[in-house]
Amino acid sequence: MSEFEESGIGEECGVFGCVAAGEWPTQLEVAQVLTLGLVALQHRGQESAGIVTSNGVNPPTYNTLKGMGLVNNAFPPEDLLKMRSCNLGIGHTRYSTTGISELQNCQPFVVDTLHGKIAVAHNGELVNAAALRRKVMRHGVGLSTSSDSELITQLLALTPPMEEVDAPDWVARIKNLMHETPTSYSLLVMYTDVIYAVRDPYGNRPLSIGRLVPVSKLHTAGFCGSQASVCLLCLVLRYYREVMPGEIVQISKHGIKSLSIVPRPEGDLPAFCIFEYVYFARPDSIFEGQMVYTVRQQCGRQLAIEAPTEADVVSTVPESATPAALGYAQQSGLPYVEVLCKNRYVGRTFIQPNTRLRQLGVAKKFGALTDNFAGKRVVLVDDSIVRGNTISPIIKLLKEAGATEVHIRVASPPIRFPCYMGINIPTKEELIANRPEFKDIAGYIGATSVQYLSVEGLVSAVQGGIPSIQKGERISTKPSRRVGHCTACLTGKYPVELEW
Amino acid sequence: MSEFEESGIGEECGVFGCVAAGEWPTQLEVAQVLTLGLVALQHRGQESAGIVTSNGVNPPTYNTLKGMGLVNNAFPPEDLLKMRSCNLGIGHTRYSTTGISELQNCQPFVVDTLHGKIAVAHNGELVNAAALRRKVMRHGVGLSTSSDSELITQLLALTPPMEEVDAPDWVARIKNLMHETPTSYSLLVMYTDVIYAVRDPYGNRPLSIGRLVPVSKLHTAGFCGSQASVCLLCLVLRYYREVMPGEIVQISKHGIKSLSIVPRPEGDLPAFCIFEYVYFARPDSIFEGQMVYTVRQQCGRQLAIEAPTEADVVSTVPESATPAALGYAQQSGLPYVEVLCKNRYVGRTFIQPNTRLRQLGVAKKFGALTDNFAGKRVVLVDDSIVRGNTISPIIKLLKEAGATEVHIRVASPPIRFPCYMGINIPTKEELIANRPEFKDIAGYIGATSVQYLSVEGLVSAVQGGIPSIQKGERISTKPSRRVGHCTACLTGKYPVELEW
Amino acid sequence: MSEFEESGIGEECGVFGCVAAGEWPTQLEVAQVLTLGLVALQHRGQESAGIVTSNGVNPPTYNTLKGMGLVNNAFPPEDLLKMRSCNLGIGHTRYSTTGISELQNCQPFVVDTLHGKIAVAHNGELVNAAALRRKVMRHGVGLSTSSDSELITQLLALTPPMEEVDAPDWVARIKNLMHETPTSYSLLVMYTDVIYAVRDPYGNRPLSIGRLVPVSKLHTAGFCGSQASVCLLCLVLRYYREVMPGEIVQISKHGIKSLSIVPRPEGDLPAFCIFEYVYFARPDSIFEGQMVYTVRQQCGRQLAIEAPTEADVVSTVPESATPAALGYAQQSGLPYVEVLCKNRYVGRTFIQPNTRLRQLGVAKKFGALTDNFAGKRVVLVDDSIVRGNTISPIIKLLKEAGATEVHIRVASPPIRFPCYMGINIPTKEELIANRPEFKDIAGYIGATSVQYLSVEGLVSAVQGGIPSIQKGERISTKPSRRVGHCTACLTGKYPVELEW
Amino acid sequence: MSEFEESGIGEECGVFGCVAAGEWPTQLEVAQVLTLGLVALQHRGQESAGIVTSNGVNPPTYNTLKGMGLVNNAFPPEDLLKMRSCNLGIGHTRYSTTGISELQNCQPFVVDTLHGKIAVAHNGELVNAAALRRKVMRHGVGLSTSSDSELITQLLALTPPMEEVDAPDWVARIKNLMHETPTSYSLLVMYTDVIYAVRDPYGNRPLSIGRLVPVSKLHTAGFCGSQASVCLLCLVLRYYREVMPGEIVQISKHGIKSLSIVPRPEGDLPAFCIFEYVYFARPDSIFEGQMVYTVRQQCGRQLAIEAPTEADVVSTVPESATPAALGYAQQSGLPYVEVLCKNRYVGRTFIQPNTRLRQLGVAKKFGALTDNFAGKRVVLVDDSIVRGNTISPIIKLLKEAGATEVHIRVASPPIRFPCYMGINIPTKEELIANRPEFKDIAGYIGATSVQYLSVEGLVSAVQGGIPSIQKGERISTKPSRRVGHCTACLTGKYPVELEW
Repeated sequence: MSEFEESGIGEECGVFGCVAAGEWPTQLEVAQVLTLGLVALQHRGQESAGIVTSNGVNPPTYNTLKGMGLVNNAFPPEDLLKMRSCNLGIGHTRYSTTGISELQNCQPFVVDTLHGKIAVAHNGELVNAAALRRKVMRHGVGLSTSSDSELITQLLALTPPMEEVDAPDWVARIKNLMHETPTSYSLLVMYTDVIYAVRDPYGNRPLSIGRLVPVSKLHTAGFCGSQASVCLLCLVLRYYREVMPGEIVQISKHGIKSLSIVPRPEGDLPAFCIFEYVYFARPDSIFEGQMVYTVRQQCGRQLAIEAPTEADVVSTVPESATPAALGYAQQSGLPYVEVLCKNRYVGRTFIQPNTRLRQLGVAKKFGALTDNFAGKRVVLVDDSIVRGNTISPIIKLLKEAGATEVHIRVASPPIRFPCYMGINIPTKEELIANRPEFKDIAGYIGATSVQYLSVEGLVSAVQGGIPSIQKGERISTKPSRRVGHCTACLTGKYPVELEW
Repeated sequence: MSEFEESGIGEECGVFGCVAAGEWPTQLEVAQVLTLGLVALQHRGQESAGIVTSNGVNPPTYNTLKGMGLVNNAFPPEDLLKMRSCNLGIGHTRYSTTGISELQNCQPFVVDTLHGKIAVAHNGELVNAAALRRKVMRHGVGLSTSSDSELITQLLALTPPMEEVDAPDWVARIKNLMHETPTSYSLLVMYTDVIYAVRDPYGNRPLSIGRLVPVSKLHTAGFCGSQASVCLLCLVLRYYREVMPGEIVQISKHGIKSLSIVPRPEGDLPAFCIFEYVYFARPDSIFEGQMVYTVRQQCGRQLAIEAPTEADVVSTVPESATPAALGYAQQSGLPYVEVLCKNRYVGRTFIQPNTRLRQLGVAKKFGALTDNFAGKRVVLVDDSIVRGNTISPIIKLLKEAGATEVHIRVASPPIRFPCYMGINIPTKEELIANRPEFKDIAGYIGATSVQYLSVEGLVSAVQGGIPSIQKGERISTKPSRRVGHCTACLTGKYPVELEW
Repeated sequence: MSEFEESGIGEECGVFGCVAAGEWPTQLEVAQVLTLGLVALQHRGQESAGIVTSNGVNPPTYNTLKGMGLVNNAFPPEDLLKMRSCNLGIGHTRYSTTGISELQNCQPFVVDTLHGKIAVAHNGELVNAAALRRKVMRHGVGLSTSSDSELITQLLALTPPMEEVDAPDWVARIKNLMHETPTSYSLLVMYTDVIYAVRDPYGNRPLSIGRLVPVSKLHTAGFCGSQASVCLLCLVLRYYREVMPGEIVQISKHGIKSLSIVPRPEGDLPAFCIFEYVYFARPDSIFEGQMVYTVRQQCGRQLAIEAPTEADVVSTVPESATPAALGYAQQSGLPYVEVLCKNRYVGRTFIQPNTRLRQLGVAKKFGALTDNFAGKRVVLVDDSIVRGNTISPIIKLLKEAGATEVHIRVASPPIRFPCYMGINIPTKEELIANRPEFKDIAGYIGATSVQYLSVEGLVSAVQGGIPSIQKGERISTKPSRRVGHCTACLTGKYPVELEW
Repeated sequence: MSEFEESGIGEECGVFGCVAAGEWPTQLEVAQVLTLGLVALQHRGQESAGIVTSNGVNPPTYNTLKGMGLVNNAFPPEDLLKMRSCNLGIGHTRYSTTGISELQNCQPFVVDTLHGKIAVAHNGELVNAAALRRKVMRHGVGLSTSSDSELITQLLALTPPMEEVDAPDWVARIKNLMHETPTSYSLLVMYTDVIYAVRDPYGNRPLSIGRLVPVSKLHTAGFCGSQASVCLLCLVLRYYREVMPGEIVQISKHGIKSLSIVPRPEGDLPAFCIFEYVYFARPDSIFEGQMVYTVRQQCGRQLAIEAPTEADVVSTVPESATPAALGYAQQSGLPYVEVLCKNRYVGRTFIQPNTRLRQLGVAKKFGALTDNFAGKRVVLVDDSIVRGNTISPIIKLLKEAGATEVHIRVASPPIRFPCYMGINIPTKEELIANRPEFKDIAGYIGATSVQYLSVEGLVSAVQGGIPSIQKGERISTKPSRRVGHCTACLTGKYPVELEW
């Protein structure tokens, strides 16, 4: 849990799109499915949300809704009702800094071009954004936001040159874009009656495809492109497969069609963000053929091997560290108990300026289940220590409530480097692993002992379970299975050269 | 979890008060402690909140803040700042029906009397409210709300007759009130520089006392009366003891003083609401000397004895049923796993009118952790089935995701009767236990089997762990320990005759 | 205009009630008529508004709506729709200090009594409120607000003693109230299916009765009690007559019935607030048989007689001083021109702390129509100078834009004393007439000369036009016409002894 | 007044900019002056407002604020405070259709280009917008809004081609834009430390320049470009001169500099919108050397000549028709009186679907000053009859209140044609002058008689007072004074060929 959450570490967005299948107009409520999908992606961005729908005819009518706050509050129900006749759409959740005028940065972006209107939703961060901005502006385009997403729409509009044609070749434009920028992006591009789902050649950000299940005769089936993998499994949406690194998939009412795979430079491995496994993704997501929950449990087991503890009970800082704690307990043979109960009405407690306020924050958020640990030695598994501010009052709470020892075991390695591919990470100086206090981290946070999972341990926990051939990869022209992950924030080794 | 939550079963309020200790004015931020206390009580009422503070001098200045929504949003920070000079205060969270004009029903109530202003915060429901309203109105008093709390303030003002005196005897007035109405109420009455914490003779609603811990030299200590027992243990507020049934406790800057215990009729047992253990209270609360979490775990163990199952894994509907599920797993020897992950951005999903919307609601709220149960027989422990609407799509989700059997085990008996003491329960006809479908409840909800905990099992789980002499009870003049709980909603046996 | 407005001088409320005539249920939209009436009273209070309606059956269902801000924004249309079945109702606009929790002070007040529910709307201020509060509290009643209106409802409930009877005598209770407090109040008291319109024996606050005109066959007629006299004349509501000082009028679906006139002490004259003529009332109101606009014009004429000027043009500070300016122009023979145009999007500009901000405020609010006065000597008629802050930058504006002289003529005498009967007046020290600067008021505000209307001039302008027998007064048992007005804020002579 | 207002006829925006003079940083609060200027332009757009400020250094920091509603509510004061260090800025008020997401259409537009950021505020409508959009998109630019202002920013960025240079030539770009589109636009273009004030070659929309007056030593002087001509005269801002048709004026801290005049095609006259005189502009504005109030008065005189009436009094529908009514009274010799008082708390009453609601709307808005006209024949001067819906219930009101005859005199000709240059006009079918009822317009609206001002009469009233040489025109290279106005909505003669 908590250190990631409290430190403001997070993705800046999540994307979701869906197309109703079969004959149009349908009874499927596309706007409702989009809302559902964005709620499932809420953990990837909570400050604003947007959806754009199309009625799928030529020329199409696009309908845009954007709002501040959580998805469930962002869209007035009466506005969603007005989207009833739409047959496809894309949506986006976003973490924005502040202010209502920020709605102008809110995705999806819609632009009118000579070939008609396109809508674009984007997750990621272009490593060569600065160079691309200059290029676009040199062409005489004014950019009205600092967002990569506007940049992407203008790049799509720019090359190849536009002419008034009957059948514009958007796939060629998307490929062109992919050759301009190696990573990181997972894109949904909507044009009239299709959605193109695009993942960058390094596969840095996740993107999956699902099939909508008709829940009654009245509800037509359909297809989705999403970063919420299997979250809706069984009831509404079934996981189908991941979009491959570099792949362009067309989603339309006729189904799903892989159009192309743009290759990486010779010799480069994929670079899927390893922190999707560690923290960002929902535990029920499936990446590379394995469930995130299971990977986290495996991290806990690996941690028990690397950092065994003489103790009485194993517990978790609820809720995100629970699978790792259960894994640690299983591997170590120590009993698993709950030591903290969480007040579900308290949201993220923003970083407080002083010790007392941090303690009050923790007092608001957690209660101690004293019977379960008083007089005992506790192993407390957390998924990270970023600044050390949050775990410290929790340890104090447990000790004052009777724990004789509190051993912190962290189910991921220390973060030491910035991310340039879409993750919001504190500045280098703020990261505890780069500070002098790190030498005596246990003393600093008041723990009996502190140990982290090693980078090698994390990589083996992640890669150990990846099947040699993933479902859906059959379409690949390169038969040999190659696995790779981006660990830049842990190791400083970035998948591509940085052009900043 | 869920069935209680989804069914709208809940208390209508929570009360919290606090007094700074030592010399006044203090550096303790009473308004901040009140806010903290109300956040800890948020689960007892989420629609509005109010606090009233006093500067403690004679005549006092009272400061009132009321707002709609969660505590953290209800009070503008600048208004809390204005309360800096206050030395004591009481607060209240409330579940109100709707509308901004409802703020007038929002507690605490403050009234001006010949003896000066008093403020009253109340949790509970007077069983003889109708008769008392008539009595007050016969005296010529107009009542401006339908709330029991206004009624209580007017009853306090009425008898004995008021005269302009130097030292009004509020305790005599409180005793008089307690003779007029047997149950149910936990009250905080603030007058100038003291708070009276009052619990009805049957002890139907909880009320505890805590001590504020100075976290630095700048922060004076103090005392609290609260329904949030030990939730703040260790960091800010330490659990001290419960207010006894019938007791009036005075809290002032000089400390805590038991003033009186109003007795029950000869032969009557106490009647503490057993559903505080089952569902309402936070798991870290302490009642009658035992932690709620531990009682719930014991209910799970008892359930495993009463209703054993041939299965592969035990799990929970997160989060409230987790201790019972862990207890069931321990007793049965079956492994405990997580089968559902919860989207923490989805709040209570109000009851949906049809099957499909209920399924969408569950799809929003839960993801299936398929690796943990696919191909297995699952025992799913929940804390109640009230209507059967919520558990049904969860079972469907698990089955479609690969569970071969889903056995529902309910860690409390079926609810069959209304509550007249402050709990909001669906009408008799809506309760699944009173409906024809109950005969084949497993078939109705789609489970492989369904079994409930017995009333006797629940009572023994609750009463088995109560120490023979509770801390704080030394003040009682009756040495023999007598235990009793209200099980009216399960058995129809009410603790007092109903005068409705 | 402006000095009154800018100084925050104003009434604290306005009341309006209406009953649909004929057989019920009717098609008349009572809630809509109430809203219309309150909009017409908006100038008497802009901070909050409330309405209470009744369905008129026994026992009645009352429906309450209260909201902050202007009437048109205070009530959600969907809530007004829910009042469709109501047949009568009363409403209130109020100037409240601040804060959403202030809604609890918002009128009308509804209280439940042994005789059923009554609703009360009140304009005025009880001169003996403090003594009455003590009396009510000595009876054992707690008062939850500082408002006179709650006090009135409790006084109505108190005497004579209440018993459960079939036909409670509310008129006796109202008379009793009127004997307890001489002034000032105009009341509407709603009980089940009637509204009692009550004016205090001194007639300090206005109250009129009108007849609703059916605008089509679908719309039943009805009756209104209002402080908005004739404002709706012709289209919806026709002026019928004033409620007489001390009179209780019953308004029901059967019509209008005078029930009683409570007399003043022997020898006391009526004391209708003279500032209703000068500023508060709308110019289209009719009091004592004369139109307020005409009285103001007469004040202007009187002013021209008392304070003639050597000048070229006469003008107004728009808008409230316009009738007086036109009267001045007619009497003096000087041409009337407009010198200022007003930005209708700028509301009351709250008093600014320094000269520059006051100038900016005037710059926002007024533009100079230079062609009309450049190179000329201007007589500028205003209705008051309270603090001198507002008129000063206007004079500066006119001079810089080319006026050679600016003579200020004020169409009312200087305010020197506080009002204890419902008007909000600055403290004595803030009133310009009580300050040293007043000796050279022209120099202080930058005018060429300043002159006020005399008290005698004002009284003669007001009383000169009152017909010897007013329409509607036939019901009076005392045939001789006696005229009197409250001029306390100008002269310090209060109509009753003050018991503060 | 009213018919224009009620019909929703209006401009879609107003622009205002200002630069502090002298050495920077200054004490002048540019954000406050901008707010003041926009309040003065509020009548040109009430739905949203925006300002962009610059700190004037290279590269500049721009600060943007946009908000819904009136200027005084749109900008949070704390956000304005953050602009304290800015030295120049431009602002915009806008009439937008609906919805919060519409903020993205809100001006000023800021775009980043290879030459740095520019901000653009625009009033008007490009007659050849469709062709220009195609041109821009053919170049490969995506347009994210339907607004002409975004189009203008992209056109400015496009030609001549951009290169990374030290001193970009924005004036060349502006000239290029002006050659691409003949009308209608008044533009403010901000770049780093200068504002370019630009008026189209036909001068269709107004644009003036003023000088800020230091009100104390602390406040530096400065310069403004504005559509609010003289509204702030004397106190803060002094009228300096109009921007000439086709002129580009540079405003910087060093002063005002005319850079260029782009000529019209040979033989074309200027085409300043004549409705600025009739209705849109504030009466204190100065165009072409004459005050708008005086022109309106002249229209009233001309109307009295063209359409004399046998009557007793002349009056106005307050407030915009008042100068015309006074002019009519002067010319005709009939006395001027007020017959209606306006409730200043009632805003624009949106067009109501039926007669009764329209009557209620008028009843809310106006009260009848019966004493002034009962038993008399009234000439009621209004500035337009667009649909006939609003004047009709006013006539009914006057007649029922005792007017024996009501003669409507309209101080402008009937509107018959759409405007393509920025004015929102009802569709041709909705205009009363194009409907069959127009034949008997008096009967349709219930008037005794109806007469309009002729087009020739309007033009002579407008052009009669224009001085042969305007101040500021000395810079013109063409000495001969040529006068022309756009009367397209009255005559169908558009100043340029329409390319739609």
